[in-house]
Amino acid sequence: MTFTYSLPVRFGDVDHAGIVYYPRFFHFFHVAFEELWRARMGAHAYRDLLDQERVGFPAVRAECDFHAPLRFGDTADVELSISRLGDKSIEFRYRVRKENVLCAEGRVTCAVVDLAKFRAIPVPEHIRALLSDLVEP
Amino acid sequence: MTFTYSLPVRFGDVDHAGIVYYPRFFHFFHVAFEELWRARMGAHAYRDLLDQERVGFPAVRAECDFHAPLRFGDTADVELSISRLGDKSIEFRYRVRKENVLCAEGRVTCAVVDLAKFRAIPVPEHIRALLSDLVEP
Amino acid sequence: MTFTYSLPVRFGDVDHAGIVYYPRFFHFFHVAFEELWRARMGAHAYRDLLDQERVGFPAVRAECDFHAPLRFGDTADVELSISRLGDKSIEFRYRVRKENVLCAEGRVTCAVVDLAKFRAIPVPEHIRALLSDLVEP
Amino acid sequence: MTFTYSLPVRFGDVDHAGIVYYPRFFHFFHVAFEELWRARMGAHAYRDLLDQERVGFPAVRAECDFHAPLRFGDTADVELSISRLGDKSIEFRYRVRKENVLCAEGRVTCAVVDLAKFRAIPVPEHIRALLSDLVEP
Repeated sequence: MTFTYSLPVRFGDVDHAGIVYYPRFFHFFHVAFEELWRARMGAHAYRDLLDQERVGFPAVRAECDFHAPLRFGDTADVELSISRLGDKSIEFRYRVRKENVLCAEGRVTCAVVDLAKFRAIPVPEHIRALLSDLVEP
Repeated sequence: MTFTYSLPVRFGDVDHAGIVYYPRFFHFFHVAFEELWRARMGAHAYRDLLDQERVGFPAVRAECDFHAPLRFGDTADVELSISRLGDKSIEFRYRVRKENVLCAEGRVTCAVVDLAKFRAIPVPEHIRALLSDLVEP
Repeated sequence: MTFTYSLPVRFGDVDHAGIVYYPRFFHFFHVAFEELWRARMGAHAYRDLLDQERVGFPAVRAECDFHAPLRFGDTADVELSISRLGDKSIEFRYRVRKENVLCAEGRVTCAVVDLAKFRAIPVPEHIRALLSDLVEP
Repeated sequence: MTFTYSLPVRFGDVDHAGIVYYPRFFHFFHVAFEELWRARMGAHAYRDLLDQERVGFPAVRAECDFHAPLRFGDTADVELSISRLGDKSIEFRYRVRKENVLCAEGRVTCAVVDLAKFRAIPVPEHIRALLSDLVEP
């Protein structure tokens, strides 16, 4: 089970070489991450999680292998799954495809933190439940 | 007649004051502009216009009044119309609303240019036809 | 009297047309604005102004005329002056030059606000003193 | 031997959590990379390398561990070294510090390619010479 969000490569996403500026891939990952919350909890849910529950998910590690470039006008299909749902951290896997060609594959490990104290906490139960079907077998 | 595209304010769109970094509004305008082409001509049409027909629309003037801030989690409804369809330039009007509250109103004048020579040319007929219903009365 | 900050156009500042994505010019303006505070008050001064004095300068209007494109590898000299130092707002003028060629000229009007109440306030005296030599005659 | 470039965290570099949006760290890496070329070859050298020699350095892999957040007003000291100078690729190591606190450590592997054919080529001799002192022992 995966979650996929498709986004058009924008006019300003590219660099002088005419391909997507590689840091933007990590932004694409984050957009898919944001869309996951939107799809499952509603438009304001992630903001409320941060601002009211004071639970945050700062990245502690990010990595990506780039296999094929993306260009303006392409549509990037960003597929998200969870490669590890730990006690106090979650590792998300992202695959970016263009018409079924794998362009990039990355992983981002997020700590789960109490934003008031910026300290790691166990993944809250309702978050665990919300994400469980995305955990890779 | 207007064209509207809605986009969620992203986690990274804000600044240290917690509101959308104002240059991003012009990016929002451009996203709506790109979506107009996508909606009316298909995913690759604008790229083809640039790369094959060699017709481009560089901004020669942009302005915006900011009325209310946008924050992460808000949805920005970007409404596009054409305030002037000139011989060799087009002035687009953009209104950004959040739940019907006008947050920003801007205008962007684009020259129509032959990209091979970077010289202004008359608006091609098929472009004029494509946009005509968006011209304000 | 003006304040000038020079910045290299970055690899990722350009768009699919190979020139600086026009919303980035407003970012360039803001970078010069930030550098003004750094140069005159020190590295943390503007942050302290916002976070401790709770004085902010949200843009209420921005405009720019684009005269010549900038490309990756160019150096943009951003010149800042103050076209109007009002009671509760400040209008900054920005001129962007590349080797003395005027590429863009813009103005940004900032309200001066009490960030705790998001309400306009008179320009504080120490700010007025700090900026007074930049006011155009 | 390392190359260090210091850059202020900008007003728009942060996210809704008030810390630098993590994809921006990869942008910081790239800025240091660009500054390396500027420092050693001049302002236009990297552009000329791409546009005239048609040699490019697309990222094929990027990774970063995030140790401490950066905030608006901080200065990021980005230290660059070369962890592997291969036949047809170069692995750059980046360490980002704020007042000597290590905030992030990453590595970016770049292929060396003939941009005309988008095919890997041996690292040109003059590039190898230019970078050799940065190779870690």
